[in-house]
Amino acid sequence: MAKDPETSNSTVPDTVTFALAQAHFLVGDISANTQKMRTLALEAREQGADVIVFPELALLGYPPQDLLLRPSLSGRVKSALASLSDIDDIVMIIGYPHVDHHGTFNSAAILYNGQQKGFYHKQSLPNYGVFDERRYFDKGRNQVLFDYKGITIGLLICEDLWQEAPMKALKEQGADMVVSLNASPFETDKQEARKAILAKRSREHQLPVLYVNAVGGQDDLVFDGGSLVVQADGSIAHEAPRFLNHLLLARLDVKARQFDTQAKAPLSLSAESEMYQALVVGLRDYVNHSGFGGVIVGLSGGIDSALTLCVAVDALGADKVYAVMMPYEYTSQISLEDAQAQARRLNVSYTVCPIFDAVEGIRHTLAPLFNESPADTTEENIQARARGVILMALSNKFGHLVITTGNKSELAVGYATLYGDMAGGFDVLKDVYKTQVYALANYRNRLEDTPVIPERVITRPPSAELRPDQKDQDSLPDYDVLDGILRLYIDEDLSYQDIVDKGFDAEMVAKTIKMVDNNEYKRLQSAIGTKISHRAFGRERRYPLVNKWSVKADV
Amino acid sequence: MAKDPETSNSTVPDTVTFALAQAHFLVGDISANTQKMRTLALEAREQGADVIVFPELALLGYPPQDLLLRPSLSGRVKSALASLSDIDDIVMIIGYPHVDHHGTFNSAAILYNGQQKGFYHKQSLPNYGVFDERRYFDKGRNQVLFDYKGITIGLLICEDLWQEAPMKALKEQGADMVVSLNASPFETDKQEARKAILAKRSREHQLPVLYVNAVGGQDDLVFDGGSLVVQADGSIAHEAPRFLNHLLLARLDVKARQFDTQAKAPLSLSAESEMYQALVVGLRDYVNHSGFGGVIVGLSGGIDSALTLCVAVDALGADKVYAVMMPYEYTSQISLEDAQAQARRLNVSYTVCPIFDAVEGIRHTLAPLFNESPADTTEENIQARARGVILMALSNKFGHLVITTGNKSELAVGYATLYGDMAGGFDVLKDVYKTQVYALANYRNRLEDTPVIPERVITRPPSAELRPDQKDQDSLPDYDVLDGILRLYIDEDLSYQDIVDKGFDAEMVAKTIKMVDNNEYKRLQSAIGTKISHRAFGRERRYPLVNKWSVKADV
Repeated sequence: MAKDPETSNSTVPDTVTFALAQAHFLVGDISANTQKMRTLALEAREQGADVIVFPELALLGYPPQDLLLRPSLSGRVKSALASLSDIDDIVMIIGYPHVDHHGTFNSAAILYNGQQKGFYHKQSLPNYGVFDERRYFDKGRNQVLFDYKGITIGLLICEDLWQEAPMKALKEQGADMVVSLNASPFETDKQEARKAILAKRSREHQLPVLYVNAVGGQDDLVFDGGSLVVQADGSIAHEAPRFLNHLLLARLDVKARQFDTQAKAPLSLSAESEMYQALVVGLRDYVNHSGFGGVIVGLSGGIDSALTLCVAVDALGADKVYAVMMPYEYTSQISLEDAQAQARRLNVSYTVCPIFDAVEGIRHTLAPLFNESPADTTEENIQARARGVILMALSNKFGHLVITTGNKSELAVGYATLYGDMAGGFDVLKDVYKTQVYALANYRNRLEDTPVIPERVITRPPSAELRPDQKDQDSLPDYDVLDGILRLYIDEDLSYQDIVDKGFDAEMVAKTIKMVDNNEYKRLQSAIGTKISHRAFGRERRYPLVNKWSVKADV
Repeated sequence: MAKDPETSNSTVPDTVTFALAQAHFLVGDISANTQKMRTLALEAREQGADVIVFPELALLGYPPQDLLLRPSLSGRVKSALASLSDIDDIVMIIGYPHVDHHGTFNSAAILYNGQQKGFYHKQSLPNYGVFDERRYFDKGRNQVLFDYKGITIGLLICEDLWQEAPMKALKEQGADMVVSLNASPFETDKQEARKAILAKRSREHQLPVLYVNAVGGQDDLVFDGGSLVVQADGSIAHEAPRFLNHLLLARLDVKARQFDTQAKAPLSLSAESEMYQALVVGLRDYVNHSGFGGVIVGLSGGIDSALTLCVAVDALGADKVYAVMMPYEYTSQISLEDAQAQARRLNVSYTVCPIFDAVEGIRHTLAPLFNESPADTTEENIQARARGVILMALSNKFGHLVITTGNKSELAVGYATLYGDMAGGFDVLKDVYKTQVYALANYRNRLEDTPVIPERVITRPPSAELRPDQKDQDSLPDYDVLDGILRLYIDEDLSYQDIVDKGFDAEMVAKTIKMVDNNEYKRLQSAIGTKISHRAFGRERRYPLVNKWSVKADV
């Protein structure tokens, strides 16, 4: 793009003020997203901003998936951009999908005083992990820079920053600073990684960078905000809060090419704190955007449902959470007491619904077909499925969403019942390993003087209570060991041999990997849940169901 | 790649014989796939073949998905290729994943007398529909040609042929003929499309083409074979059977650059016949490769379960199919009679298992919580879920796979119960619209003198029989109309306005689209089923769950 004289100014001001619109833009809701842009732009202008920057694809929300293939997309986007043309005296940099005869692009439009001054097409299209951008977008081929009040601003979109070339090219073409639009999903340690790459790129090219991230939950993804303003020396001038909507203002000294800096040090979140907040935001936005008035949780007295209940209460408020305890023959008195204690401490609706009649009815129906065959996991699954039916019936009758409580360790090895404890629309702990469940439970307990999860729930040996004296560790390795193997196999993609070489028992590694591989069919039908790791089950890990890849290479 | 003098020959023979190895290569099973290649190569050589061509990625199976990211892949592939080095006197062209310091490629290796004579990397990587090739593969940049007994052979892999450039470049670089390796999944009318593109490309460049396709089911995909040998004038010299393993031999007259032609005309399959065969192969391979000894089907007396039962019997044999009729209060006498009649005619195990006790047990359990609230769809779902629990219990106890019977129309609009009739591992009719279900039922009935599906099952108005006198059309438009709208919206991606412009009632279109959009959450947890259309639910259609895209653009 040619530099635009209209947006430059002969009397160079001392400062230019940028607004970073860290906000939640809902997928598909072009109308509301456009309205939100208007509101934020007017507010930013009111606060003295010269330029406002929105996140990547904010107009349509991210990730829009196959909505990008809808034929009416182009028309809707054009109308939406046109509807913002009456906003004057502020430059708006808007993430949007650009459709023309060259293709479909992930783009940033520069709007000023009713005119589209130019647009930039993202050059680096991620097509790994949760990202499928090459399914939809064509690659941009050019840098875009524009002049405004004496500074030359270069544009980047998300992945562009993680690659070497785009920023280097902007520097070579004369950029004084860089504006980066992002929709970067939360992962543990991601904010540190963002800061590291921003520091590296800024320093390398001596360019200040504005990094604007989206915020809020979209299905399994949570955008965690934490937008950043980085000086040319790589230091952080401003950091927006994590997980919250925030309009961040940053003032650039035009001559010095330097931003003002915020007074207080940015908040550093602990690993548990950021994970927990991600879970809260993910559930909150899924429930609210789906239009449910509340959620139903089956409480077992165990730690997974206890933590799930906490997240639900923190996400939605106690008045929108309905806990149901469904005891059966093998439910211990401790479990009943602890479930009730949790519900009381969190002040949620609590119902006890014994499932004897349901289980007996099902068993009676099956009796003629089972011919007195000995009990096995079938009977355990019947209990789990009776509970699933009860929860779904409550959901159907009263309109609340059933949330499930399975953790990543269970889902990895298939230690869960399809249509039983897996029944529900959102699995809060889907990407949380059991050892992390413990850490988060302890974290949540530390937040209040009176722990909301009874200590006994955390210390007693975990059990599904589907047969007498059952313990998880009858069927599974200790969770420390199991999670150790699972992290290496799933999150780090190590091979059997590499895991064994790290000191794990060979037989246990082989058994664990086999369980993971054999349970893809359960995961295929599992509810979604918030991604917090860098390898979540679901769209981030795509395995065949029928698959004869053997644990050990044998060719 | 330079032309290789070792594989050329100074005494040019009159003919060269090619073997097209149309076979099933299971994903991940490198060991068995390599063994199969050995067997086929020796058999082909025995039959006088000079060259044998295997399908795309045959060594690993297609589509391997994230197995391509496993760190041990490269080593396994190298060992496998090396293990074939003792096969001499036949050129083997093998589809395999190539990993080196340049990247990972979808490749074809040329093996001859223990040496790898070269390799070709696929240049056109599909990343649309069911394909995610840019998630895994780097793009090949060069044509590869090799000389053999006086002819120069150019290589292509699948998508390369559908693009203009690769074949054009092969011609320019002196190819006398083209060998194309494919893993092309079945869709209705796909074979005709393949023939059309092959005829076009051959004629355009006056090049004969060998088109080798894979065969067999892999999760939701079925590879339908139908490998083709095409003359330089675009005419078909040979066509391998559809849906079957087949070693096809074709002899090229070296001087004339012309293939011998098969005596009889290739079989032309009706639309119903190829759809039906795809369903049979998809189910058969899923069940067998998953290691199940049989399948369980819930028979309702309706047409969906009737057709599903036929497919199951044709796929697995009557002795591996277990039909269960689970009547309740609203099950009609007609349904009972017809379910029994189907099972008898197909000679499968048939059990009647009334669900009164199960439903009553569940209702009794819920009674204190429901407080005599009026009956609604909750009670209907309870019936469906009681059946789901019964079928899953039988599956758990006896080790058979529950197959589900939902069709594409139902799944599109959410006319199905999660964890109820949707419970099961494989949904035979998942990609079959209700109107196609009727067509296939009639097709299957025409195959035998005595129709296997009682006529009454086809002619009576469809009903879920979950409340008195219920009919599908109480809740849905006529299936002719519904399927008309669904095809335009889902398969053709038309907008609301475009569909209305085709003459459908505006309100009905809006209502239908809304049902489709609102039921993504059910589809997310649905079983897989064989893709037969060019827009199947599942990996081919990726929509957000939370999604405020409105039917009508309103910005």
